[in-house]
Amino acid sequence: MALYYGVSLFALLNFLVGVLSFPTMEQGSTCGYESCNKEKPGMINVHLIPHTHDDVGWIITVDQYYYKQVQWILDGVVAELKADPSKRFIYVEQAFFTRWYDEQDEATRNDVKMLVNEGRLEFILGGWSMNDEAATHYTAIIDNHKIGFEFLRQTFGECGRPRIGWQIDPFGHSREQASIFAQFGFDGLFFGRLDYQDKEQREKDKTMEFVWEASPNNLGSKANLFTGVLPNFYNPPRDFCFDISCFSFNPMIKDNPKLHDYNVDEMVDLFINTTNDQAKAYRTKHLIMTMGSDFNYVQAHMFFKEMDKLIKYVNARQSKGSNINLLYSTPSCYLKKLNEDDLVWTTKQDDFFPYADRPHTFWTGYFTSRPALKFFSRTINSFFQSVKQMGAWANAAKNETIQKELHHLGAVVGVSEHHDAITGTSKQAVAFDYAQRLSEGITSGKVVIQNYYDYLMPDYHSTSAPEQVICENLNSSICSVTESGNKIFQVNLYNPLARPVQYVVRVPVTGSSYAVYTPNATVQSDTFPLSDETKGLIPKSSQRATYELVFTASVPAVGYTSYFVERTSNKESASREAKRSDDTVLQGKYVSVKFSSDGQMASLSSSASNAEVPLQQSFLYYPAHGGECVSDDTKQPSGAYIFRPVDNSHVKIGITKWEGTYKGKIVQEARQKFGDWASQVVRVYQDKPYVEVEWTVGPIPIEDGIGKEVVTRYSIPNFGNNGVFYTDSNGREILERRLNYRPTWKLNQTEPVAGNFFPVNAMIGIKSTKSDLDFTVLTDRSHGGSSLNDGDVEIMLHRRLLYDDCKGVGEALNETAYGRGLIVRGKHYLLLNKISQAARQYRPLAQEVFLRPQITFSSEQLSRDAYFQMYKSSVSSLYQQFPSNIHLLTLEAVPGEPVVPSPPGTTPYLLRLEHFYESGEDAALSKPVTVDLEKLLYSYPIRGIHELALGANILASDVHRLSWKTKNDKPAKDQAKPLQFEGMNTLVTLGPMEILTLQVDIVSNRRS
Amino acid sequence: MALYYGVSLFALLNFLVGVLSFPTMEQGSTCGYESCNKEKPGMINVHLIPHTHDDVGWIITVDQYYYKQVQWILDGVVAELKADPSKRFIYVEQAFFTRWYDEQDEATRNDVKMLVNEGRLEFILGGWSMNDEAATHYTAIIDNHKIGFEFLRQTFGECGRPRIGWQIDPFGHSREQASIFAQFGFDGLFFGRLDYQDKEQREKDKTMEFVWEASPNNLGSKANLFTGVLPNFYNPPRDFCFDISCFSFNPMIKDNPKLHDYNVDEMVDLFINTTNDQAKAYRTKHLIMTMGSDFNYVQAHMFFKEMDKLIKYVNARQSKGSNINLLYSTPSCYLKKLNEDDLVWTTKQDDFFPYADRPHTFWTGYFTSRPALKFFSRTINSFFQSVKQMGAWANAAKNETIQKELHHLGAVVGVSEHHDAITGTSKQAVAFDYAQRLSEGITSGKVVIQNYYDYLMPDYHSTSAPEQVICENLNSSICSVTESGNKIFQVNLYNPLARPVQYVVRVPVTGSSYAVYTPNATVQSDTFPLSDETKGLIPKSSQRATYELVFTASVPAVGYTSYFVERTSNKESASREAKRSDDTVLQGKYVSVKFSSDGQMASLSSSASNAEVPLQQSFLYYPAHGGECVSDDTKQPSGAYIFRPVDNSHVKIGITKWEGTYKGKIVQEARQKFGDWASQVVRVYQDKPYVEVEWTVGPIPIEDGIGKEVVTRYSIPNFGNNGVFYTDSNGREILERRLNYRPTWKLNQTEPVAGNFFPVNAMIGIKSTKSDLDFTVLTDRSHGGSSLNDGDVEIMLHRRLLYDDCKGVGEALNETAYGRGLIVRGKHYLLLNKISQAARQYRPLAQEVFLRPQITFSSEQLSRDAYFQMYKSSVSSLYQQFPSNIHLLTLEAVPGEPVVPSPPGTTPYLLRLEHFYESGEDAALSKPVTVDLEKLLYSYPIRGIHELALGANILASDVHRLSWKTKNDKPAKDQAKPLQFEGMNTLVTLGPMEILTLQVDIVSNRRS
Repeated sequence: MALYYGVSLFALLNFLVGVLSFPTMEQGSTCGYESCNKEKPGMINVHLIPHTHDDVGWIITVDQYYYKQVQWILDGVVAELKADPSKRFIYVEQAFFTRWYDEQDEATRNDVKMLVNEGRLEFILGGWSMNDEAATHYTAIIDNHKIGFEFLRQTFGECGRPRIGWQIDPFGHSREQASIFAQFGFDGLFFGRLDYQDKEQREKDKTMEFVWEASPNNLGSKANLFTGVLPNFYNPPRDFCFDISCFSFNPMIKDNPKLHDYNVDEMVDLFINTTNDQAKAYRTKHLIMTMGSDFNYVQAHMFFKEMDKLIKYVNARQSKGSNINLLYSTPSCYLKKLNEDDLVWTTKQDDFFPYADRPHTFWTGYFTSRPALKFFSRTINSFFQSVKQMGAWANAAKNETIQKELHHLGAVVGVSEHHDAITGTSKQAVAFDYAQRLSEGITSGKVVIQNYYDYLMPDYHSTSAPEQVICENLNSSICSVTESGNKIFQVNLYNPLARPVQYVVRVPVTGSSYAVYTPNATVQSDTFPLSDETKGLIPKSSQRATYELVFTASVPAVGYTSYFVERTSNKESASREAKRSDDTVLQGKYVSVKFSSDGQMASLSSSASNAEVPLQQSFLYYPAHGGECVSDDTKQPSGAYIFRPVDNSHVKIGITKWEGTYKGKIVQEARQKFGDWASQVVRVYQDKPYVEVEWTVGPIPIEDGIGKEVVTRYSIPNFGNNGVFYTDSNGREILERRLNYRPTWKLNQTEPVAGNFFPVNAMIGIKSTKSDLDFTVLTDRSHGGSSLNDGDVEIMLHRRLLYDDCKGVGEALNETAYGRGLIVRGKHYLLLNKISQAARQYRPLAQEVFLRPQITFSSEQLSRDAYFQMYKSSVSSLYQQFPSNIHLLTLEAVPGEPVVPSPPGTTPYLLRLEHFYESGEDAALSKPVTVDLEKLLYSYPIRGIHELALGANILASDVHRLSWKTKNDKPAKDQAKPLQFEGMNTLVTLGPMEILTLQVDIVSNRRS
Repeated sequence: MALYYGVSLFALLNFLVGVLSFPTMEQGSTCGYESCNKEKPGMINVHLIPHTHDDVGWIITVDQYYYKQVQWILDGVVAELKADPSKRFIYVEQAFFTRWYDEQDEATRNDVKMLVNEGRLEFILGGWSMNDEAATHYTAIIDNHKIGFEFLRQTFGECGRPRIGWQIDPFGHSREQASIFAQFGFDGLFFGRLDYQDKEQREKDKTMEFVWEASPNNLGSKANLFTGVLPNFYNPPRDFCFDISCFSFNPMIKDNPKLHDYNVDEMVDLFINTTNDQAKAYRTKHLIMTMGSDFNYVQAHMFFKEMDKLIKYVNARQSKGSNINLLYSTPSCYLKKLNEDDLVWTTKQDDFFPYADRPHTFWTGYFTSRPALKFFSRTINSFFQSVKQMGAWANAAKNETIQKELHHLGAVVGVSEHHDAITGTSKQAVAFDYAQRLSEGITSGKVVIQNYYDYLMPDYHSTSAPEQVICENLNSSICSVTESGNKIFQVNLYNPLARPVQYVVRVPVTGSSYAVYTPNATVQSDTFPLSDETKGLIPKSSQRATYELVFTASVPAVGYTSYFVERTSNKESASREAKRSDDTVLQGKYVSVKFSSDGQMASLSSSASNAEVPLQQSFLYYPAHGGECVSDDTKQPSGAYIFRPVDNSHVKIGITKWEGTYKGKIVQEARQKFGDWASQVVRVYQDKPYVEVEWTVGPIPIEDGIGKEVVTRYSIPNFGNNGVFYTDSNGREILERRLNYRPTWKLNQTEPVAGNFFPVNAMIGIKSTKSDLDFTVLTDRSHGGSSLNDGDVEIMLHRRLLYDDCKGVGEALNETAYGRGLIVRGKHYLLLNKISQAARQYRPLAQEVFLRPQITFSSEQLSRDAYFQMYKSSVSSLYQQFPSNIHLLTLEAVPGEPVVPSPPGTTPYLLRLEHFYESGEDAALSKPVTVDLEKLLYSYPIRGIHELALGANILASDVHRLSWKTKNDKPAKDQAKPLQFEGMNTLVTLGPMEILTLQVDIVSNRRS
């Protein structure tokens, strides 16, 4: 019985018969730029963009929106488009479109296909949701679009492929999002929200449109994206909203001279003035006007009929000398006209965070709002990455059930990335619905996982695996299997990384003495008594666990290991119970933390840095600003979106109890209590290079009538980072941040705290200019973070507020559970390094934090020997480890028809490899690296390899992006040449931060 | 030059070529009862009635509603009907439908015709507006429908003919309205509002549906009408409003099991419960549910798609034993099924006034609200009656301009009769729009009047008449022509009555000495100095008149007289200026009024009664109840709809100034002043049998924070009317009223004042049981009125309020003008008679009050002789006076094709003759009377006479109303046999209150 039993990659599948029909671009299709309505040369051509912005949940849930609004929008728009070939409409959110399309009859579907083929209905963005950019992980952004693209490709073919990024509502814009869009093959990006000062400057400078160099040091022009700031958020010009939601206050075009209130001349004058005003802020004679807004077009006929009138009467004015011409258009048609002007555009290298729409109104609260939901979303996104892999091993392409469950899980992730979901800016009831969906996603994933283990685990005498149970609440030390009183249970871990991991498992148990076994060894383990704080997380009546069993699991690359756990009194094999001591030092092989006598963190040393620094940590809160919804910005309250401290001062939550240290063989921990409602466990592992800090905050008290925004502040006095700190962009590239500074305009800072917060998706760090030290904190979810003082790293953990912040949600962010304010727990990972060595710790650690093994439990009541006879204890599906700077970003089966038809007898897979270092980050690991796909993808023969765009919906060689000249006179069009895999050439080279997206056709086979 | 120059009736016209096409019922049409969707036998069949209730102005104006809502409703409904033959829709308000139809292209019009021909779109009611029933005159009700019917008949033929009365929203229901509907040939009437106590009783007794005997003493079964009270006002059942206006709070049918919130079973259960509840209040297994409400179906697709689901899922429940079956239906289809059940129905003889929807909430305020608008509307309605006649004389049928102007004027009248227009229950801005429209109606009428005079007036050397000027503000003593300083002007009066009148003209002038001439005589005249109160009506800067010139004009039947007026110092011919005296008696030939020494009215005597009674008059006000819009009915405020005194006590406005008497030869008047803001002029004419009381009320003060409802109370102590009084129904039949009593249910009176107010359209009276005396007050407009104490006749004149009354208008009724509270002036006519002689005074007087001559002015600066040489001084178009109990109700040209094609060489006219006495009202005049049409309609030959239904849209002989058995076992179907005019038989007999509607085809000719 082999511990590591090599199961060959892709050795699983037969040729797949596509269950969905796969239209290619039809003959005679006129979609794309050719289908655009014509401009009138020499005039100011106003591109009216009929569109609807359909939030995938916000005030009501996604399904409620579908029923209440979206179905009517799509029913009506399709009817209107059908009736008039000049009309255009764009649709964005595939979470909604697929719901609708699913309910249509064949005739309507054919109508829609006709409209898409003729460019009259155009899909823009194409994501499942319009994802948030501040709190999302890049994997989720890619998947959110990929699932939408997949539907569009399989349903509509090339005419359904989105070519434009359309982030009209998200509250600030990340550079990574732009980079991803560029790599999707998008020709441009439009958005609505940017700092009001930035916008004013851009309007003045006519730089509302520019080329965003979204990966300036790594990907080059491959990540450049033409970007346009929309003139009026994403709304119609004032007085020209013709939606039914506007009709109680907006004038209609009243063109019957027989009736009272005839207003055609007045409306035309008004529109012409509006147009001329807008033209002042833009460079060309093409203007874009977004004719729609949130859930507009519920009465599509109304909006279109009024626009028909507008076009008719404004254009009729041309006979009196007007040079303004209106046409129905789409963002891509507008973009094409801009492109044809062949101008030289300015560039931008940083991002659009933070966003303020007026003084004192910084949208930096949502970086942290609903931290539990943010964690849940991140967790399920991680889960999805693993489950997709497991589905591939379990022959997903053949198995409709697995496909359905994977699709459902992907849809759940897509919904949760929506810019009112993961942001925490929905109503509470909707947040509950998101959580319910994520939970339903686990149920879907569980089916796949079970299939995976059924496929891979059985050995002698077994045909299926034990039932795998997922314990969602391990971080509250709850797990039905391990707390049930079972003497025996199994812990199974799936590692999605392309290298083996040593993962420290924590399992809630009901005693202090357990033994953990592999088939032929006892694994060292500790037991730690549950702290009062952990016990306090759930009602007493639900509490069963008394200890946590801790052991280090060795899990192979892209594979699993099963551990057998038995309650035992055998002192030799049993876990050792860690006992409380007053010792104030935690010491591992690589790091050490010391505490002061009152229990506060005092110093951190690491072998990698060869230094000890006086690290302090404290919990603080900012009393939140109240206020009211008025035009006076000084009254702006803090709320779900907005972070606004009452006066920029903070209150320190003093340490109230030093609960001592507990030292096991694997890990040592110190327990601290702060005030009545915050606590912390600091852990140093024997074999890990980081300090783990598990913070627990809540219930935040509000009895004093004051909302509170709680941060943890790590502080190294006299560090010397000079107001500079670093945050990641969606978990990938890192941006430099400076206090009270924006790279592209002169900031007039109105909020010295809130205006310096930035999104922290995975890490935040500072570098010393004095000592060559890098201090980086990795997080398990997104937060807002900053460095307000020298040597500080400050991360907002939790918020409980009493005012709505006037941005539409209409509720104060006041989360509760079990009848009290919500308690939130999370983890930080502290790394102290030499600057030059930092990346080689934080890059892989960030992956391990995000893609931690998926743990399932079983409770086969067999002897250890019997268990390991029936079931393989460990399987790796990888033949060899990847180079240490290459990440297996994606491995999944392709449902339906692949982009390129697979040769007979092969099965197509989607594979993404990622070089996960930035250039210059590490002397060795930032270098380009060449891998041989054939060697990685052992052992069944590859019959085809095709490079795809990042969205996996088009061959890379079929992407022909528009090219744009930039100010620096560097042509921005030199996009990387797509790889061509011909003959047996399976070597590829990846540069820093490069992602290679491949369709790989593998010879199909039944299970090995 | 003849004073009375007989111009023959109808002697004016050539054969008319119809300008509108006139479809008859098309072959293969399936409209009518045959087009109904089929019920499922044996089940409870629920007739879903998709409908929209489109107020012809209320919160916004009629044209604003057209643009904002109605166009979308009709656009969308037509599209939905077209797509599915099972769907039905009814449309009601022709003021809107015609606006919409006018804008449609030929293809859409053909679609609509198809839908109408197949009974899928059905016109119900068919009025221009859904007229109010409390404040409207019967002539306006008839015209309001006739103009709608005319459009429908000419556009859609028989399939467009409405067969159902649909008064779903008006706030109480008059018996005359029902009678008129029956005479239109309607098969039934449905409405939504009746007293809550009445409704409760009817639900208990299952008498929600019954036969209304709407003219129990006069017209017999011809006026009987099957009447149904709708279950839920006119709304859908709770939770089943699928309109876009409901969608924020109402559940949708969520039938996709893949989405959250699936609720089909729940919704079906709920609907079945609703149905079973409703069934308890009705007798049959047919149920009606109104699926619509105010301006519903702006998103028609939404409402229909949800109803499709409702029908599908509720009917699917039949497979599990449900006996409930849903179908799309119309009121007529529902009615037909009721009729087929052939049950015996209860009857009702009284009316549905007043309406209370809960305790303390009597909708009796609107009987008086906006008294100036009520007067304006009544005035323009009267104007329309005259102008239609004048158009007929001026060859309207040939003249497109006249047709257009007449149509416009008719449309204006139709709009103003709407149940939020004349009721005074619109917002102020909308009330201004109604007034503007009425004013535009005058402009239209003026064109017709000018044509009339151009046609008839020229004599030697003239080809057209002088320009006729209308002075709209004569009751404020304003008239540009007569105040302009012209030494010479002419006063022209058109009398629409079929008998000559002696009309006392009052003309504002700038001096005290004028002479009034006919061609060969000087007419006696008085001048009266303008009172301070009259001067106070308008700002000082606009004041020019100082006197009123008064003379008695003799105007022939259906004709005009022109008077020549000249400022003169010739004492012999000049008017005599009436001077103030302290005399306290006004004495005419027939009546006399005495005043007490402090100036209060003290007694009234009349020769007709041969009695003198101690008549007192006082102004009072009821302090209005404030409150708030809550479910607690004791908090109900008084407002535009609701009359609610604060505690049922009143405040008397004491007389403050006796301004003495002014006596001319024609009229004597006494002037009184009450408090700071009420005054009165009491007039006794030398030759008139009534006392005229001109009241002026306002600005009602509100500085004390108390709204006020001002009444005038005429009081004859110890009169002995025993709590009984009489009010007219829309100016025609008279109903008996009793204090705190309803004829058909036991009243629990919650408002002893407001709950005893009834509509007074034209008259209110009391009869003494002691002395055989009748005291009747005629009014110039509609009011609320009552008799709260013995001998009282109380009429509410004006209201100024500070609270909205929570019925939707959202404004307090607080009218202002010239920066102060509105001043309103009006007239009452008091008659004291023996009971048996009363009708012969009040019936003709009521006609004279309503159809007073239309006065126009000209200012030809010619000598009297020259003027009367160029222009005929008087013309009558009637050959002989009508019998004194027959009224020329209507004479108008028929635009387009008549109901029966006219023989070549003839012109069709619409003629209505009315016997205007009730049976038993007068010993002689109540008798049937026979007239020879040929003799009346001298002198051109009649080629055809056809009796039409009252609405003039169908031959009487083609009307086949459904017959209904009534409780008394008298079959209700014996409707009068239509008259047949064959050969030269032109004799017709009219019984009491009978209206004969005729198409008369007269040999055409050019002017005589």
